[in-house]
Amino acid sequence: MLKRYLLAPGPTPVPPEVLLAMARPMIHHRAPEFDPIFAEAREGLKWLFQTRNDVLMLAASGTGGMEGSVSNFLSPGDKALCINGGKFGERWGKICKTFGVQAIELKVEWGHAINPQLVKDALKKDPAIKAVYVQASETSTGVSHDVKALGEIVKAHDQVILVVDAITALGVFDIKTDAWGLDVVITGSQKALMLPPGLAFVSVSDKAWALADKAKNAAFYFNFKKERENQVKNQTAFTPTVSLIIGLQEVIKMLKAEGLDKIFARQGQLAQAMREGMKAAGLALFPKESPSDALTAVSAPDGVDGQAVYKNLRVQYGITAAGGQDHLKGKIFRLSHMGYADRFDVITAVAATEMVLKGLGHPVKLGSGVAKAQEILMAK
Amino acid sequence: MLKRYLLAPGPTPVPPEVLLAMARPMIHHRAPEFDPIFAEAREGLKWLFQTRNDVLMLAASGTGGMEGSVSNFLSPGDKALCINGGKFGERWGKICKTFGVQAIELKVEWGHAINPQLVKDALKKDPAIKAVYVQASETSTGVSHDVKALGEIVKAHDQVILVVDAITALGVFDIKTDAWGLDVVITGSQKALMLPPGLAFVSVSDKAWALADKAKNAAFYFNFKKERENQVKNQTAFTPTVSLIIGLQEVIKMLKAEGLDKIFARQGQLAQAMREGMKAAGLALFPKESPSDALTAVSAPDGVDGQAVYKNLRVQYGITAAGGQDHLKGKIFRLSHMGYADRFDVITAVAATEMVLKGLGHPVKLGSGVAKAQEILMAK
Repeated sequence: MLKRYLLAPGPTPVPPEVLLAMARPMIHHRAPEFDPIFAEAREGLKWLFQTRNDVLMLAASGTGGMEGSVSNFLSPGDKALCINGGKFGERWGKICKTFGVQAIELKVEWGHAINPQLVKDALKKDPAIKAVYVQASETSTGVSHDVKALGEIVKAHDQVILVVDAITALGVFDIKTDAWGLDVVITGSQKALMLPPGLAFVSVSDKAWALADKAKNAAFYFNFKKERENQVKNQTAFTPTVSLIIGLQEVIKMLKAEGLDKIFARQGQLAQAMREGMKAAGLALFPKESPSDALTAVSAPDGVDGQAVYKNLRVQYGITAAGGQDHLKGKIFRLSHMGYADRFDVITAVAATEMVLKGLGHPVKLGSGVAKAQEILMAK
Repeated sequence: MLKRYLLAPGPTPVPPEVLLAMARPMIHHRAPEFDPIFAEAREGLKWLFQTRNDVLMLAASGTGGMEGSVSNFLSPGDKALCINGGKFGERWGKICKTFGVQAIELKVEWGHAINPQLVKDALKKDPAIKAVYVQASETSTGVSHDVKALGEIVKAHDQVILVVDAITALGVFDIKTDAWGLDVVITGSQKALMLPPGLAFVSVSDKAWALADKAKNAAFYFNFKKERENQVKNQTAFTPTVSLIIGLQEVIKMLKAEGLDKIFARQGQLAQAMREGMKAAGLALFPKESPSDALTAVSAPDGVDGQAVYKNLRVQYGITAAGGQDHLKGKIFRLSHMGYADRFDVITAVAATEMVLKGLGHPVKLGSGVAKAQEILMAK
């Protein structure tokens, strides 16, 4: 018998209360009983996104929200500045290309965060840029970009919007959509929102809606304007993911009961314990700066294959983590602590990593990382 | 947000597969679709009990099985030898008293196991004794009694049966019902069988059935003979716990896939890791001999209230353990590792115990017990 532990950066574990809510009998999305559920979810999302803007719900995974955040705001030939510091930053460029948008890439070495000054300079240099695309948390490297600083910069440009992929950020650490001037913020259900995959969320500012009015691109399923028209009436343009929205209602109840400050403090403590635990076990973190509180990317020690760590965690200990992507394959492994995670998930992750490394012949003192994690997790 | 960890010696966690099986639509227990489910459960129980005897299923918790194992076999005025080494040993005497059976108690100091020689002597001294009652695992003290040795002794007496409460033993460590001459073996659903409470199981040998033929006591709901007549036809005398029996079918599939040897090895490894981990953290185990592999009773260190450990595990860390009973209240705390438990449950328990003790001001080196547990749990 092998118990399974899901510690990958999404999908993340779904709380039992939420699973039960989603197992209720199916209801129809045009029937009156769906109306209050959708309304409560809409209001809850505004609270979670810290915005007065509408937050659209789309039956898609996060990438659907990313695609719509290009196709709804830009026209073929438009220029966009894409911050590319990893696999997901790279995706912005690919989506732009698909929609005929001219992507100017600001490449950031993997493991590093964008220097906001470079964005400031780029916008100054090229007034044709209409949008800046960035990740609040780059899942492939475990690095977070300073979207607050980027918000300050983009605010100064009346004709430029800031689009933030907050898929592994929202609900983990503070993202003040309105106060920071984040025009478009995207997240997905399967990360800190503790739901199965299948729901994308996008908040849109007035500045972004104004840009959308001028955009000429192909957006049918991800047509944000049509969605907004429907969603303000508690409807959706197309069939919504009914069970996931029922689950979302439950998730929002849980999150509200805890409160944003406490959620961010808890997620921060878990992340700190994971990072310091790994370091105390003699391991180096992959991020050179600004580690994301959503997940921890750990460098495989010299002579140890990161994929072997990832694989042995799963096969020997039932723990699903993540390996490295592209050129980081074999070089790093990643463990998540976002969403429905608590102290003993971090202790399990650190203990199992020690055991796997020792099993691979790497000299590690069992319990050394766990002790450090325990110390941090004991703090109130 | 506080995740909950159920590490009490029953009810124990129910595997997700089993919860799902029990959530299937209700079926009728006299309808044909119940027949193969009940038949499969009956056969599976024989495998698990290592017996060719019928294993009765009763809609009751374990104590119902204990009561029936007095009322079905003995008559008012009969003599029974009750081994009392804890709260559950004491219960044998109370049941005997209720049914007018004269209980001769062999008191064993809590924390110790019965010396089988004392049973041998008692049976020799008093040929009127018709039954010996014992626990294979005394849950209140975490001690196991040597039922194999008792089986050898009782076998030599044609007119005496051995009744074994294996409620926290069966499915944890080896209990060879037939080979060891255990006439009546009782267990409950909510321990190593990983089910919710509500089902008791009793295997009965031919020797015990012969005694039942002569018994004159009040047994209506727990009438074993009537149950057997029904159950051999895949029926029950009264309404059975349909969902639990559907869950049992699933549990038996899981247990068979693992195999008895591997189950006992896994449970033994978890128990050893818990015991050695607690000792490495500087704690003393309560059992002075024969610790049960089902649960570990730990003595609270001098100056530490065992109830405070128990309470803080729950309140601060979401872990439901158990305290001490009767005169052991405040002196010990108990943690289970039976049933749906794995390596990280033990690591969680040891880590949390260290953290609670440190929080209470007790000098404990964080990670010291965890390191020992990790070492043991790494062994194949």
